[in-house]
Amino acid sequence: MLLRSQRPKSLPKKARSNSGFSSFSQLAFALTLSELARLADGDIVRGGLDLSLTGVASLDAAGPAEISFLGNEKYRSQLATTQAGAVIAARGETGGPETTALIVVENPSLAFGAIVKHFAAASKEFEPGIHPRAFVDEGAVLDPAQVRVHPGAVVLAGARIGNGTEIGPNAVIGEHVVIGENCRIMANVTLRERCVLGNRVILQPGAVIGSDGYGYEFSNGRHVKIDQVGIVEIGDDVEIGANTTIDRARFGKTQIGEGCKIDNLVQIGHNVVVGKHCLIISQSGIAGSSKLEDYVTAAAQVGIVGHVTVGSKAILTARTGVTADLPGGEMYAGKPAQPMREEMKMQVQLRRLAKLVDRVKALEKAINS
Amino acid sequence: MLLRSQRPKSLPKKARSNSGFSSFSQLAFALTLSELARLADGDIVRGGLDLSLTGVASLDAAGPAEISFLGNEKYRSQLATTQAGAVIAARGETGGPETTALIVVENPSLAFGAIVKHFAAASKEFEPGIHPRAFVDEGAVLDPAQVRVHPGAVVLAGARIGNGTEIGPNAVIGEHVVIGENCRIMANVTLRERCVLGNRVILQPGAVIGSDGYGYEFSNGRHVKIDQVGIVEIGDDVEIGANTTIDRARFGKTQIGEGCKIDNLVQIGHNVVVGKHCLIISQSGIAGSSKLEDYVTAAAQVGIVGHVTVGSKAILTARTGVTADLPGGEMYAGKPAQPMREEMKMQVQLRRLAKLVDRVKALEKAINS
Amino acid sequence: MLLRSQRPKSLPKKARSNSGFSSFSQLAFALTLSELARLADGDIVRGGLDLSLTGVASLDAAGPAEISFLGNEKYRSQLATTQAGAVIAARGETGGPETTALIVVENPSLAFGAIVKHFAAASKEFEPGIHPRAFVDEGAVLDPAQVRVHPGAVVLAGARIGNGTEIGPNAVIGEHVVIGENCRIMANVTLRERCVLGNRVILQPGAVIGSDGYGYEFSNGRHVKIDQVGIVEIGDDVEIGANTTIDRARFGKTQIGEGCKIDNLVQIGHNVVVGKHCLIISQSGIAGSSKLEDYVTAAAQVGIVGHVTVGSKAILTARTGVTADLPGGEMYAGKPAQPMREEMKMQVQLRRLAKLVDRVKALEKAINS
Repeated sequence: MLLRSQRPKSLPKKARSNSGFSSFSQLAFALTLSELARLADGDIVRGGLDLSLTGVASLDAAGPAEISFLGNEKYRSQLATTQAGAVIAARGETGGPETTALIVVENPSLAFGAIVKHFAAASKEFEPGIHPRAFVDEGAVLDPAQVRVHPGAVVLAGARIGNGTEIGPNAVIGEHVVIGENCRIMANVTLRERCVLGNRVILQPGAVIGSDGYGYEFSNGRHVKIDQVGIVEIGDDVEIGANTTIDRARFGKTQIGEGCKIDNLVQIGHNVVVGKHCLIISQSGIAGSSKLEDYVTAAAQVGIVGHVTVGSKAILTARTGVTADLPGGEMYAGKPAQPMREEMKMQVQLRRLAKLVDRVKALEKAINS
Repeated sequence: MLLRSQRPKSLPKKARSNSGFSSFSQLAFALTLSELARLADGDIVRGGLDLSLTGVASLDAAGPAEISFLGNEKYRSQLATTQAGAVIAARGETGGPETTALIVVENPSLAFGAIVKHFAAASKEFEPGIHPRAFVDEGAVLDPAQVRVHPGAVVLAGARIGNGTEIGPNAVIGEHVVIGENCRIMANVTLRERCVLGNRVILQPGAVIGSDGYGYEFSNGRHVKIDQVGIVEIGDDVEIGANTTIDRARFGKTQIGEGCKIDNLVQIGHNVVVGKHCLIISQSGIAGSSKLEDYVTAAAQVGIVGHVTVGSKAILTARTGVTADLPGGEMYAGKPAQPMREEMKMQVQLRRLAKLVDRVKALEKAINS
Repeated sequence: MLLRSQRPKSLPKKARSNSGFSSFSQLAFALTLSELARLADGDIVRGGLDLSLTGVASLDAAGPAEISFLGNEKYRSQLATTQAGAVIAARGETGGPETTALIVVENPSLAFGAIVKHFAAASKEFEPGIHPRAFVDEGAVLDPAQVRVHPGAVVLAGARIGNGTEIGPNAVIGEHVVIGENCRIMANVTLRERCVLGNRVILQPGAVIGSDGYGYEFSNGRHVKIDQVGIVEIGDDVEIGANTTIDRARFGKTQIGEGCKIDNLVQIGHNVVVGKHCLIISQSGIAGSSKLEDYVTAAAQVGIVGHVTVGSKAILTARTGVTADLPGGEMYAGKPAQPMREEMKMQVQLRRLAKLVDRVKALEKAINS
């Protein structure tokens, strides 16, 4: 790559105007090993208390000033040869090079998350203000001293935005949308009219909330659009992935319960009700009026037909095709969905089908002779 | 949720400027029961003619001022206990509480759609004008007294926009794009250069029309891009879902026929020809140069390989994988696709495979002894 | 379609302002047959050297001033009846109407690509400048005489943009993003903070690069977000399709190797490593931390679970479901993935399952009697 390593000495005026709040903060705040142990809520097994650590990396990539972790036994072989300055691992761990400090914790993955959060914090400081290149309709309701609206964002009349919330560049907030506090609406998101978001909701870039449901009546050889006048209602602490689409209800609400985490490129149809704390992973689709009870997991590329219910704590493994109601508390696979162990048995038999055919041939031969 | 219940007494000047046309209209226009019957083209079985109704809701959620309907027998149990002020149902219906008015019609779903349309109408009134925060190139061709361009929208040189058409906030209309009359291009849509839309076309937010087709030649160990200089042509009355992508032709046209309804997150490859009045449901994909004849239905998550034809009125059930030409007028399933009844038979046998293995074992035992 | 055929005589002032650089260039540069042969690196079999050709089209659509080609035997029947002025075909070809000129080349598809490139070139001429309706933060690093930023684009502080690069209308370039030279970032793209692009990278409209990876820890009945502080790094000559999403690494990098071509609506999870020159076709998804070695092809709607490796030059046919490491150099199909020939054999047996059941029944009858 050939990139400019120097900022041009002068930029034309148009490139200079309207800067404002976008200052940059250093990502790395150095930690000593003892600070690290405190932050990770762990114990130091090995290493000097004053060791200085300035960032995070994977076991195979980390250098002497970086912290890494062993959270998955798959990476154990990398522990022996890591050059990380410090490693976080599960209680009982003693491995790794003598030159690498070792901290043990209950849950290495979670502890490492806290460390990452420390290094990430600076990049997230909230600075309120409406950028002069944003458009906020005078009929929108927000406190410019408590809300941040980035350049190019459009906030239409009647929209109400809670304190601590950030509206990303070129995002569009439709008329009479209600957004709670401390939400993060990222770049190029579309929130159509009247949709309602709780607090601490995160919408990744390009997500579309409140598109029309897919509803037509067939009449005289043509599909006639059925108006979709409902809304989408999203609970507290929900996160929605990039370019995911959630359709508004025909009337009433499409609902996403508190604490749900929805991945990228997921499709949620009109009038779907997703319970609390569900996980819906990438490229899954849920057709109109279906219901997920609480704590359902839908792994990637799952499909759920319309008008069915998936019970609480059901786990739909990747690419499960749900065509009827499913009881909760069970792991499912296949299309049509069946309990995971049935599907696995079936897959094994399927792969032995050639042998079964041979056995039947042998039997036929034996009978005939 | 803790939301501001009061509009701040004063907003800083920057938040006030450039309002313009985004006034809010009440969603609900009260209807009397007799007006409702006329609008629904139905007969009153029960209820007072002067009953006033102000909105719509589902059977289980509706209150005494709201209209609901029974369009699917699945919800029959809710009819007995509904608190709706009025219910629309199929001719012959007599159920529901005595306190709930009852109107009977030919097609309750369609009739209810008309009612919903009534309540929705106010939110859709067309107010022309180019918002001062929109950018319309001076080389674009449109009548600002007949077209509405929302804030943040970009309309480039040579684009021609028909009367009654609305360009949503932050949508991008490329050079020399042609858009017909009474279209609704929603927020954050991208219409790339030279694509052509008919009349009354609706593009839901985030849709991309005219992205480059996926075409490369392999040469000296590298994939070399083949220029994609064709366009996308979309017929009258087509609707295209949120974040759906339709690639421009390598040369010539990718075509979407009149009256097609395409759902969210669908992918249409370059040079695909979709006939008239097709339904293509969420997360389906059609690879390059394939052809759908008229009135084809592709249910959700269908995949169609390149260079094949699907015949008129074929129905591809959810997740069908089409790998060869398919005659029309038939319902298909599975991958590779086969007639639905074959696939269902196969799926039944598949789920009995364990038993078949046992039967073969028993036969082997019988033969050996 | 009823479209205005005349540009309105006067546009209101607001529609006139800020035009700038968006002039239109003719697509068609007439070629003579001899120029065409030189451009195609081919030999003239038939036709007058001075024949003038002004555009390209398919065999069945081309007229006497247009060039077409035969690149796929499937279209041979169209060769006999084409009205094209000239056709490019493989060496040895002699068919087609006497009135149609014929040029033969090694690779008709590739040669035709060069011709298309000629006609397309005018639409791509690079005109630098920052549009007055773009927002470029004063802390961004770029040379306005060498970079083009379209109206509505937002370039935030610390972003560095190489010469010859174009930032499309309403695209968002996050803080400290690094973009190489001669890149084409199209409309409504989102590039989140700190991501890094090589040279000659093309991002189709609506692509999202650097969205947060999907990572949560379950704690006290809730899914707690794990900060995703890594980036996405994209090599030289990569193209990424419309509305495709690529998540940033939890820490470290999600990597897309040099020369990869990724289609529309693809999902790439956090910490995925895609080698050089891979092809990933529409609606495929790759879960977190998986690795594709060089020259892997993933056809449409493929799914790859997390933490696995697909070996170099592996071909995953459409809708393959990868659940474990796969060696390279092999063609795979099915879910779970198996070598293509195994899957095809299995599919054949599956479709004969009804007959196998009948055979077992016959055996049982024979044994019992």
